[in-house]
Amino acid sequence: MTTKAVYELEELFRKWPSLSEEERYATFRSLTRDQREDLFLDLSSHDQAELILAMPEHERRTYLRILPPDDAADVIQHAPEEERGKLLDLLTPAARREVRALLAYAEDEAGGVMSPRFARLRPDMTVDEAIAYLRLQGRQLETIYYAYVLDQEQHLLGVVSFRELFTAPGDAMVADIMEKDVIAVREDTDQEEVARLFSTYDLVAIPVIDDEKRIKGIVTVDDIVDVFQEEASEDMQKMGGMQALEEPYLETGFWQMLRKRAGWLSLLFVGEMLTATAMSRYEAEIAQAVVLAVFIPLIISSGGNSGSQASTLVIRAMALGEVRLRDWWRVASREILSGLGLGALLAAIGFARIVLWHALGGSYGQHFLLIASAVALSLIGVVLFGTLTGSMLPFALRGLGLDPASASAPLVATMVDVTGLIIYFNVAAFILRGALL
Amino acid sequence: MTTKAVYELEELFRKWPSLSEEERYATFRSLTRDQREDLFLDLSSHDQAELILAMPEHERRTYLRILPPDDAADVIQHAPEEERGKLLDLLTPAARREVRALLAYAEDEAGGVMSPRFARLRPDMTVDEAIAYLRLQGRQLETIYYAYVLDQEQHLLGVVSFRELFTAPGDAMVADIMEKDVIAVREDTDQEEVARLFSTYDLVAIPVIDDEKRIKGIVTVDDIVDVFQEEASEDMQKMGGMQALEEPYLETGFWQMLRKRAGWLSLLFVGEMLTATAMSRYEAEIAQAVVLAVFIPLIISSGGNSGSQASTLVIRAMALGEVRLRDWWRVASREILSGLGLGALLAAIGFARIVLWHALGGSYGQHFLLIASAVALSLIGVVLFGTLTGSMLPFALRGLGLDPASASAPLVATMVDVTGLIIYFNVAAFILRGALL
Repeated sequence: MTTKAVYELEELFRKWPSLSEEERYATFRSLTRDQREDLFLDLSSHDQAELILAMPEHERRTYLRILPPDDAADVIQHAPEEERGKLLDLLTPAARREVRALLAYAEDEAGGVMSPRFARLRPDMTVDEAIAYLRLQGRQLETIYYAYVLDQEQHLLGVVSFRELFTAPGDAMVADIMEKDVIAVREDTDQEEVARLFSTYDLVAIPVIDDEKRIKGIVTVDDIVDVFQEEASEDMQKMGGMQALEEPYLETGFWQMLRKRAGWLSLLFVGEMLTATAMSRYEAEIAQAVVLAVFIPLIISSGGNSGSQASTLVIRAMALGEVRLRDWWRVASREILSGLGLGALLAAIGFARIVLWHALGGSYGQHFLLIASAVALSLIGVVLFGTLTGSMLPFALRGLGLDPASASAPLVATMVDVTGLIIYFNVAAFILRGALL
Repeated sequence: MTTKAVYELEELFRKWPSLSEEERYATFRSLTRDQREDLFLDLSSHDQAELILAMPEHERRTYLRILPPDDAADVIQHAPEEERGKLLDLLTPAARREVRALLAYAEDEAGGVMSPRFARLRPDMTVDEAIAYLRLQGRQLETIYYAYVLDQEQHLLGVVSFRELFTAPGDAMVADIMEKDVIAVREDTDQEEVARLFSTYDLVAIPVIDDEKRIKGIVTVDDIVDVFQEEASEDMQKMGGMQALEEPYLETGFWQMLRKRAGWLSLLFVGEMLTATAMSRYEAEIAQAVVLAVFIPLIISSGGNSGSQASTLVIRAMALGEVRLRDWWRVASREILSGLGLGALLAAIGFARIVLWHALGGSYGQHFLLIASAVALSLIGVVLFGTLTGSMLPFALRGLGLDPASASAPLVATMVDVTGLIIYFNVAAFILRGALL
């Protein structure tokens, strides 16, 4: 077993993202013809497009033609506008027709990831006839693991898994062994929704149908594995407080990267300016008791951190379908309790820290117990508010038809900071009145 | 086509996570026998275990026995310790042996997700013999889409995709059409690594082998789809600044949820206490120029936000294998430029805000231009430091053998806050010396 060759290719495959464009093409050239094909077929469509564009014309044809039509369409979609026509012309006329049809769909819809090369059967075939028929057609199909039973007008009547077909008596009719309850999607179903169906029903392929239930193609699970990764990346990047990237990190151009980050960062900065406005109102209190300023970062960051936890939990639970819009009150009542519990914990630690610091000769003055109480009480309020804001913001965003993942840790922290300051200074004013203020 | 029934079941399936345990069992009871089986097979192993434990003994047997051995093992793993033996006893002796063997593996290793029911062939069979043999065995196998070619001692010699077998000449030898370069994993390979292989090579199944290359089972892609979701959830929860949950959000008990969150939250709080220590050193400066305190939240939050963006990008790129440990310098040099660019942007906005506010009759005093300069310069320093910390922390964690996803937005923010204060007060002391300080 020449597992060695596999591992060399795998090593190369792993190195790929960190190579420059020139290094990639040079590496590709240095391989044997077989290795080149293996590597090429395993690359993402983005990387395939890059390689193809680096090749001379006669080679482009060879590599473009070994791709199944759905992958060829992806590669062409990744090429610059002015190259697309030329690439299409390199395909065989039949493949060109298929690829053109696929290019008409948006990249993130079922229609954009489906393959038109699926196995078709008639309901009045016998099992033996069906097997013989598939055995003839097999090479050109995306998968033979499901065969779709169609009438003359291509209406989807049912599906037979190849395994059922294979283990059924040879003289049974396809119509009798097919499953009539077919889980199908429409051409414009979002790929995220398609991915959810795969995960829910443990499927290997899902047919794509039009309004009249005519079959247009199938989406196979290997196409959808990448969708899971893409969607999780998008969500994470939004949750980190930025626009989602369209390319891998190291391949995103410097200016594009800056744009993706600058938008949210500036917006958050402008929002955070409200803290300066709020603080201006408390300048008199700070002048009277400078010690109050010392605890500002501690208090507002606690609100932000607890809010970040809560928003992450809710965003992910929503993405997996574990929590729905109408569950908001169940979540809110849980989070109020969590916020109180976590706030009390931090309040206890904060109180102990101030008292201990004072005992060790710190400088919080004679009113250190009042200061400790003001900090502790504020912490409970701020953590409660942070938890509640963090958990409810994703619901509010989804309710407005926006992406809940935009409720990023930085956004929640910014919203909580201003309120945190107001809570802190009001609690302090109440507790320290007559003593320090 | 009774698509209606499918959609009803799907609706029920979506509602499932938000039902209470009693409602679930009652709903289950209200279904027809066929619907019950369909629903049961589609549930996660966690939910299957819950239902089985709610059933009377004679029914438990039926439902446990319709599960393939790898799924039965998962269900038993989700049951409380004291129930596991009783559940094992409900299986047929053959299934019990298989499930026991699987239970010996950790749940997140290849051995823990593999199925022992794979298709086996001998190298000296003809294609027609192999097809006939599979046609007999098919019903009991996890998948027939790949058949593994073994010698007498179960050593893995090669693999034949069923499709190749099916479309090859009937009298060819299996040994001649099999692929000898088999991508395989070991029993203790982490499931995250297995998932990466599926995604890289677009596979439907991967064989699991021991040290002597004897085959132990296969992992199929439908088992691994859930792994993608699990791993992404874990990463996101860590990135939100907490321990990953083991169950869906609404099913995690209140106290367990609190524990998962309290640990990190307290740790971050204790870390953030350093800000209070740092601030104590600048009490004199604040007393002299209270206006300095006004911009503290604005400045430190900008460091935290830019750090959160950078750490999210790097963590996700690492998880997808786009960035590796030795790429740290490429990332660092990019991020230094990004930090300077983003810092300059925020500095410009901040400067404009202070000057504008003053022009509109705000209260920053005669030295407003100096204050604006101090804030702007600090912002460049803080954003640069935040970006660099956020992008390098995941490298440091991975270098130490820890999970880079622990470089959460809150952790980065906490690390950046103290430094942000020090930068701010030193810049301010330098610029305002002789004027305000």
